[in-house]
Amino acid sequence: MPIALIAHGGAGNWRPGSEQDALEGMTRAAEAGGAILRAGGSALDAVCATVVVLEDNPIFNAGTGAVLNFDGYCELDAGVMVSREACAGAVCALQRVKNPVLVARKVMEETDHVMLAGEGAQRFARAMGFGDHDPVTPAREADWRDKKTRLNEILGKHSLKMRRFLKEHPEYAGGTVGAAAVDIDGVLAAATSTGGVTLKLAGRVGDSPIPGAGNYASPALAASATGTGEFVLRSLATRTISEAVERGARLETAVRDMLDRLGRDYEADVGFIAVDAAGRPVALHRTRDMPHAWFSGEAPVAARMRAP
Amino acid sequence: MPIALIAHGGAGNWRPGSEQDALEGMTRAAEAGGAILRAGGSALDAVCATVVVLEDNPIFNAGTGAVLNFDGYCELDAGVMVSREACAGAVCALQRVKNPVLVARKVMEETDHVMLAGEGAQRFARAMGFGDHDPVTPAREADWRDKKTRLNEILGKHSLKMRRFLKEHPEYAGGTVGAAAVDIDGVLAAATSTGGVTLKLAGRVGDSPIPGAGNYASPALAASATGTGEFVLRSLATRTISEAVERGARLETAVRDMLDRLGRDYEADVGFIAVDAAGRPVALHRTRDMPHAWFSGEAPVAARMRAP
Repeated sequence: MPIALIAHGGAGNWRPGSEQDALEGMTRAAEAGGAILRAGGSALDAVCATVVVLEDNPIFNAGTGAVLNFDGYCELDAGVMVSREACAGAVCALQRVKNPVLVARKVMEETDHVMLAGEGAQRFARAMGFGDHDPVTPAREADWRDKKTRLNEILGKHSLKMRRFLKEHPEYAGGTVGAAAVDIDGVLAAATSTGGVTLKLAGRVGDSPIPGAGNYASPALAASATGTGEFVLRSLATRTISEAVERGARLETAVRDMLDRLGRDYEADVGFIAVDAAGRPVALHRTRDMPHAWFSGEAPVAARMRAP
Repeated sequence: MPIALIAHGGAGNWRPGSEQDALEGMTRAAEAGGAILRAGGSALDAVCATVVVLEDNPIFNAGTGAVLNFDGYCELDAGVMVSREACAGAVCALQRVKNPVLVARKVMEETDHVMLAGEGAQRFARAMGFGDHDPVTPAREADWRDKKTRLNEILGKHSLKMRRFLKEHPEYAGGTVGAAAVDIDGVLAAATSTGGVTLKLAGRVGDSPIPGAGNYASPALAASATGTGEFVLRSLATRTISEAVERGARLETAVRDMLDRLGRDYEADVGFIAVDAAGRPVALHRTRDMPHAWFSGEAPVAARMRAP
């Protein structure tokens, strides 16, 4: 079977001057996963290794450098899934861990549960040997202070409905990282990790950790979503894409149809990466940018800021 | 359009002598929702009213009388969903609230988020006016003490993998309550609430709050699941049933196919209730019992402990 991997660094508007760092970061991450696949390793190992590199890179909104919630601290969501036996693991609202994606994997491998939240997830992480780690970076904290001040000025008071506001101020939106891969045995896996949306309500869980929403692996595909997670969750976007592929649609057509639907129904700013069982990678998005990197078969890793 | 509602009180083995209370509780709950539908009210109001009655009844594993987690306290999950515009709201790992289903509804109606977890969910509940409430009942606490003692004797040490154990000791499993309805305007809604599985790891989130897993509403159906939530979540069971109905399958056939698949793939002890857009209610389960109550059109509420 042809091996392949694709990774993304979040849909949105990247700041001028940040493109080079984003492309280098994406390439490094995809190469970490690619090395595993080329050595005959599993898709699960490859997507986790890719996402760890992105979590550890403070320019991406996941792990270290995640955005802060309304109350001024990070809450991290992550999920992993493997096509074989539909195994899945996830964590949400996790506060102080370096690599949430690895905790999600432990939930899948070491428990009979799929998802752990909040304080319980944190205690589980400690029991599994993950040490204390503060994901807040000075840059994100300064950004949060600035945005919160302006938000208060604009809204006058704390509003729970920020959708229109986020639409008009896309720089407030979040970003997410993710990877999808198929290995030499034809097993597909996906991993996704995020700090969510800047100024989200404390406890907010988006699409990233939910199987079939922001992260999914089936015998037909592995996929990861990014963007306004609520719409991806309500429409079970990656599961819906998989259904279409299972019924015979081409992967690219299925992803494009889902994007069109999310645009028509919700004007949602979202993006997807996916790879099918034949090793075809796809990246499509409705935002201006979505840095992504990929390879298929023997080809070297390529990267770009946006799909053509 | 014909109105209809169906509710369940959890798949599992009910204690001898508890059947009468279960049937009376189910009937009272379905009548509360039915009164709303018959007066021209919405499916969302009806399923919430039904689930509130079940949450407040200490014999059911949701709200007051929820089972305790491994560390000895309740963590409550709940979700609501409406077919129109695929609106959804959910809470998970909520500790001290009387009616989690109403907090889930507030998430849907008062925020731009779909899901809130843990401490953040609790703070949101307080901000929305939900007071402090301890869901632990003396009966559940005694039950937890007894089961935890026996678990320690049997396992020797704390095992994170309890599936086989739960299989051999079905009295340890949880239970969930839920309701599905279609209203006079043809809108479908589902609501599900649970304390999860006895002795679950702290922070564990099951299928109940996840759209398309344990709770779902689409233009084709509204549905609620009960049983071993991890399998329902990994297979996105209610979404998969909806897909089949959307492609033309009869509701009962689609539910039975999903049950068969969960039995074949995972030997999962699960059950479903569902209603389609034509007001046809269905209840099927792989466990011995699943108390449920329902009505369709002008008929009075009927209730039984198990599907024939």
